[in-house]
Amino acid sequence: MPAIAGVRLATAAAGIRYKGRTDVLLAVMDKGTTAAGVFTKSKCPSAPVEWCRAVLKNGKAQALVVNSGNANAFTGKTGKTSTKLTGDIASKAVGCKPNEIFLASTGVIGEPLDATKFNGVLATLAESAGPDGWMDAARAIMTTDTFPKVATATVKLGKAKVTINGMAKGAGMIAPDMATMLSFIFTDAPISAPALQALLKAGVEDSFNAVTIDGDTSTSDTLLMFATGAAAAQGAPKITKASDIRLKPFVKALNVILNDLAEQVARDGEGARKLVEVVVEGATTKASARKIAMSIANSPLVKTAIAGEDANWGRVVMAVGKAGEPANRDKLSISFNGIRVAKLGARDPSYDETEVSNAMKNPKVQIKVTLGLGKGRDRVLTCDLTKEYVAINGDYRS
Amino acid sequence: MPAIAGVRLATAAAGIRYKGRTDVLLAVMDKGTTAAGVFTKSKCPSAPVEWCRAVLKNGKAQALVVNSGNANAFTGKTGKTSTKLTGDIASKAVGCKPNEIFLASTGVIGEPLDATKFNGVLATLAESAGPDGWMDAARAIMTTDTFPKVATATVKLGKAKVTINGMAKGAGMIAPDMATMLSFIFTDAPISAPALQALLKAGVEDSFNAVTIDGDTSTSDTLLMFATGAAAAQGAPKITKASDIRLKPFVKALNVILNDLAEQVARDGEGARKLVEVVVEGATTKASARKIAMSIANSPLVKTAIAGEDANWGRVVMAVGKAGEPANRDKLSISFNGIRVAKLGARDPSYDETEVSNAMKNPKVQIKVTLGLGKGRDRVLTCDLTKEYVAINGDYRS
Repeated sequence: MPAIAGVRLATAAAGIRYKGRTDVLLAVMDKGTTAAGVFTKSKCPSAPVEWCRAVLKNGKAQALVVNSGNANAFTGKTGKTSTKLTGDIASKAVGCKPNEIFLASTGVIGEPLDATKFNGVLATLAESAGPDGWMDAARAIMTTDTFPKVATATVKLGKAKVTINGMAKGAGMIAPDMATMLSFIFTDAPISAPALQALLKAGVEDSFNAVTIDGDTSTSDTLLMFATGAAAAQGAPKITKASDIRLKPFVKALNVILNDLAEQVARDGEGARKLVEVVVEGATTKASARKIAMSIANSPLVKTAIAGEDANWGRVVMAVGKAGEPANRDKLSISFNGIRVAKLGARDPSYDETEVSNAMKNPKVQIKVTLGLGKGRDRVLTCDLTKEYVAINGDYRS
Repeated sequence: MPAIAGVRLATAAAGIRYKGRTDVLLAVMDKGTTAAGVFTKSKCPSAPVEWCRAVLKNGKAQALVVNSGNANAFTGKTGKTSTKLTGDIASKAVGCKPNEIFLASTGVIGEPLDATKFNGVLATLAESAGPDGWMDAARAIMTTDTFPKVATATVKLGKAKVTINGMAKGAGMIAPDMATMLSFIFTDAPISAPALQALLKAGVEDSFNAVTIDGDTSTSDTLLMFATGAAAAQGAPKITKASDIRLKPFVKALNVILNDLAEQVARDGEGARKLVEVVVEGATTKASARKIAMSIANSPLVKTAIAGEDANWGRVVMAVGKAGEPANRDKLSISFNGIRVAKLGARDPSYDETEVSNAMKNPKVQIKVTLGLGKGRDRVLTCDLTKEYVAINGDYRS
């Protein structure tokens, strides 16, 4: 991962819950950095989500503090006290206002987060922070993830080169007492906060919002993006509108990164052995295609069938039927990894069972449903549902 | 199970899919029997569901044919041909019109159902049918169910005694290539078809419609009710309106039976070890309480926690939050089997971990959520999500 001018990183083991691993990330950003954010739609969000929503109005960022091991969610008034204290400690450590500090927490729900643990730690981190260590940063924010998730791209903005770095963590939406989807994107491009917000909001729709592990939504899901503007010194134009034509390569690269990270999250779903792509075509609208795709991707019966390497299209029909969206059974066709198994409402007489069985052994499985009603198309990512998912989420207490 | 005047039953092993067990049920009903039905909301219903919807307009029944092993769903035009042929064979066997025959099929989806297998079988069954054999009937309609499900009640209608018998099958909404929720209710009470339909529709809302195993909806879910009217000979009044005051004990008993059968379905959910009752109180409306209760009951993370005997209220908060219904985190309280673990948006400081752990070992677990917003209350039933569920639904192909 390359450096991003204006961003410095440092990690520490603060012992919030885990032993023998890092659990705090501090990202320090140069003055003038703009911020954007997209958060969980949960009606019961965590304290850090509420904090970020409030400071985001300001649109400026000088630091991001992330901890793993404790989500500071459903912690009542203590939660608010804790985010305030963390914001104060971080702002002193970095030398900025508290409303330029962004916070994200992931881990156990309902346990008070002792923010005094950040005392001293953040000041030390602010001093030691450097331009490298992106992989260390991605590791510090992990919970049940089995690998760190990063992506990067370098593109032209005007005549200057700008860089975009991203990291994410996922695993389950809420996992062995912890986990959540967190992602942070950094760039040196000079983009105003409103433009950055518009880009992020548009980009999330077909990436992170098109991923589901188990249909469960965390109280803490957070996607933040920061633009230091440092590339202006190399001649990058200052962008104030998301529609600016000069942004085109940047937007493309940003969307690739968001998709890449989202796919890594799906691939690393708890207990997952297969990445599953659900494509729905021929729906009445894109929104209708999304609902049907999500119905398939969240169906425990479809997901267990994939775990069993079974091209069980009957369950796909079931999931299409229960979505409540326009569908005509007798126009429906279904393929698994390119092999059509059902056609116009009945089994495709030409498909070869052995060929399908072999295709299902692939670590990536595509389920494609053609509705034959209109031009609506959409795609979502998920993973299979295995006994390991149940073990990870059900076995950890005796 | 007592006999119902006007109803005769018989079962046979027609070898539709299973070996060495019965798989066809014929119920013959006296002339004058009225019918009511409630079906899956799936947009891709099975051929028998479409058949029943059509004949139900007639409101009269003289026979019910149920087969297990093949759902005759997603079978294209063959499916329609098959239901027509079965209807013809049954109407000849019983001596009535085809539109007085009701059909239900449960089993594998997408395999053509060879209705010629009913040739001869149904005529033999019609001859041998008798007033007993309710348990045999309940067994013949099973797929992955581990026990037959029946319920009965006898109540006064006017001065006469009337009987209600019910049977059901469930297991998963769509199971190891088969399964579905089917239920059949019989009574000798003389009730008109429109009144019967109104009673059934009202009764299903808080019984079968309040049960979820995995959130997956079968293409074949069917609940039928038949009233022979034979009790009129013992002086039972003929009922033409569901609001008839004389129906009060009957309605109460019917609802108890529907609830009893629905609970048996939840208890026998695939791989289930625990029956889970989710109660939501203090919601803005009953409908809002239902949505929140369903969000909890369908959450894989809540269900795996129950399998792990873990009072993981953080996941309950998550499921409340994702329901999209009015909720205020800081007014939320949560109990497991009567022990309050969260209170006003934070962990209840008074709860005893050992006490809760012991309570979670119970084969029935009640999750109670108090929202503190209004008077809306509802209750749904589900089961836990175990490795056995994944094994049943994922392991059956190599």
